Amino acid sequence: MNNSNYFFKCSICEFRTCPSSDKLNCPDCHSPFDVNYISLEDAKIKLNSIKIPLPINSASIVSLGEGNTPTIKLDNLSDKLEIKLSTKLEYFNPTGSFKDRGSSIMISCLKKAGIKEIAEDSSGNAGASISAYSSKAQIRSHIFAPSSAPTAKINQIKVYGANTYLVEGPRDQATIEAITFAENHGVTYASHNLSPYFIEGTKIFGYEIFRDFYDSENFPEHIILPVGNGSLFLGVLKSFHELFLDNKIHKIPKIHAVQTESIQPIYSTIFKTDWNPVNQTKTIAGGIAVATPPRLNQIVKELQQNDGTCEIVSEKEIIEWQLALANQEGLYIEPTSAAAFAGISKLIESKVIQKGASVLIPSTGIGLKDLSPI
Amino acid sequence: MNNSNYFFKCSICEFRTCPSSDKLNCPDCHSPFDVNYISLEDAKIKLNSIKIPLPINSASIVSLGEGNTPTIKLDNLSDKLEIKLSTKLEYFNPTGSFKDRGSSIMISCLKKAGIKEIAEDSSGNAGASISAYSSKAQIRSHIFAPSSAPTAKINQIKVYGANTYLVEGPRDQATIEAITFAENHGVTYASHNLSPYFIEGTKIFGYEIFRDFYDSENFPEHIILPVGNGSLFLGVLKSFHELFLDNKIHKIPKIHAVQTESIQPIYSTIFKTDWNPVNQTKTIAGGIAVATPPRLNQIVKELQQNDGTCEIVSEKEIIEWQLALANQEGLYIEPTSAAAFAGISKLIESKVIQKGASVLIPSTGIGLKDLSPI
Repeated sequence: MNNSNYFFKCSICEFRTCPSSDKLNCPDCHSPFDVNYISLEDAKIKLNSIKIPLPINSASIVSLGEGNTPTIKLDNLSDKLEIKLSTKLEYFNPTGSFKDRGSSIMISCLKKAGIKEIAEDSSGNAGASISAYSSKAQIRSHIFAPSSAPTAKINQIKVYGANTYLVEGPRDQATIEAITFAENHGVTYASHNLSPYFIEGTKIFGYEIFRDFYDSENFPEHIILPVGNGSLFLGVLKSFHELFLDNKIHKIPKIHAVQTESIQPIYSTIFKTDWNPVNQTKTIAGGIAVATPPRLNQIVKELQQNDGTCEIVSEKEIIEWQLALANQEGLYIEPTSAAAFAGISKLIESKVIQKGASVLIPSTGIGLKDLSPI
Repeated sequence: MNNSNYFFKCSICEFRTCPSSDKLNCPDCHSPFDVNYISLEDAKIKLNSIKIPLPINSASIVSLGEGNTPTIKLDNLSDKLEIKLSTKLEYFNPTGSFKDRGSSIMISCLKKAGIKEIAEDSSGNAGASISAYSSKAQIRSHIFAPSSAPTAKINQIKVYGANTYLVEGPRDQATIEAITFAENHGVTYASHNLSPYFIEGTKIFGYEIFRDFYDSENFPEHIILPVGNGSLFLGVLKSFHELFLDNKIHKIPKIHAVQTESIQPIYSTIFKTDWNPVNQTKTIAGGIAVATPPRLNQIVKELQQNDGTCEIVSEKEIIEWQLALANQEGLYIEPTSAAAFAGISKLIESKVIQKGASVLIPSTGIGLKDLSPI
């Protein structure tokens, strides 16, 4: 071990190693790593008035004002659904999505490690976010995005200053090209899907829920998330596990994943459907259009160990919910976010969510980025 | 007077009257009204942990989570300009612009007055905002926007559920059509430019600056704003005047206005240039493309009484600053916001802003709404 307060542990097996920005996969089972703290207490820093264990000190955080997003009650929909529904507005982050939480911590750690140039692949939101934080940190960035990503997302990646490469073919092709580029040019592959630091940033979402609902009778019993690569899902679960270990909470909310009928690797793994990546169709929920998420096994394991379930929704349901949120609650969210809301009816139907339950769904991205369904 | 804690006072002459949502202009001099409190102390309510005099009680506020926006230091630009520059991220508001502050209070007051249907005109941001808050408040809205407004803004107005009307011709034509519609259909003309309630919402921006910088040596000496109709400008000044009257501050920051070379009614009035509305040209700063602002006289009076000045900037300067903010500070703001930043160099050149001064500029709108210059 080096003198860090944390180490990397494989997300699936028991392999442990010293942290390093070029270690992305376990040499034994090839799964991605997670950050594990030697002492939660010693690793805590104060951020947005909460004490959170993080792999970086306060002074080294590269910030654009991320986090501390508002939580609002959705009264009109609550009445209709007979539950207590609220949303945390994650598009109130500097580049318009929750990814900024992950980028802030990941870029901070890379900067502290002396990294000057990175490559990354993204369907859009993470790319824009990493482009912005790289500029702030004066790190040169190369972002590989599928050419099918919405124009507004591509433009946003470019405007922050990243070298931007549009890749034909499915989402996964952008990953292959980013890795090849990184290897050929000797730059760091800063994958938001593999980097254990990214999840340390997204977990702050969970710490804020803890802060905002502490002592409230409306502490969420259920949290529903749109899940593609699962960085928010894994971050939120990690926060509650840490809070549980730290005796701050005595029960972990149930965290459910929503995918689309078109692209459903998690749902398919759990419920053994005959879907496979080869027969994927297009979805308007671009942020969860990930047929082969690198942390798939970890996500499935965590869902099952924590009594969460997975639902799939249709394109039609996504559009209906996107419009319902806009014209009933004044919230304009992107289709990926709407997918999670579309999952509610199914979770109520299947009695996973009971009448009167407190449910929280993040509004992960702003509708302005993706105008396709209007 | 009725039993309100406030009355309407003409923004120019001494005329006073009881508040009512259909009174928009002084019968004597035709200028718009402002809210004046009988007692500042008695009118205070607690909002975002600040006590603010407002024309509405806490329980009646229609909220989508507006306000409490982060303020961040712009270190890279501060070093270059040799000043202490910070920005308050006003695009962290529910519909992506500072207008939400005004819409929240205006729609709350209209709802409380029993209004069920409104008409309004907007270049885009205010329209989207009022559409969203109307949906939340279950008020039917009719929004008139110039057909030249960016597609993303028009789509956003529509998605929140407003009946949306695109009007050919200059920005002012949308105003004429909204008024005509309101008269013909017997609905309330809820103009964000005329309603005194709107400014009561935008003034919360100033109260937050007071809260965030109170006791700080970096309390802004200068605030620079893009000014079109002036709702943020007038709101911010009102907040500082109230805080001054209330003995909370002993000096009011200098507040400067920035307009474009293309459309410069305020600059032209102050400096007697030969510009006039007839020879206006197009500008990418759509939010301040207002040739005949209804509160022009009030804005000029307030600027001059408070030692503020006005600058104009070119289209080229706006684009340069938009890109500089994105790739040097990781901030992607719309051209209208970039115009205010473009004003800094001129204010430094003319020695209005001295080396080492603390300067705050709001990032009033997000770049995603308006992709034209990229």
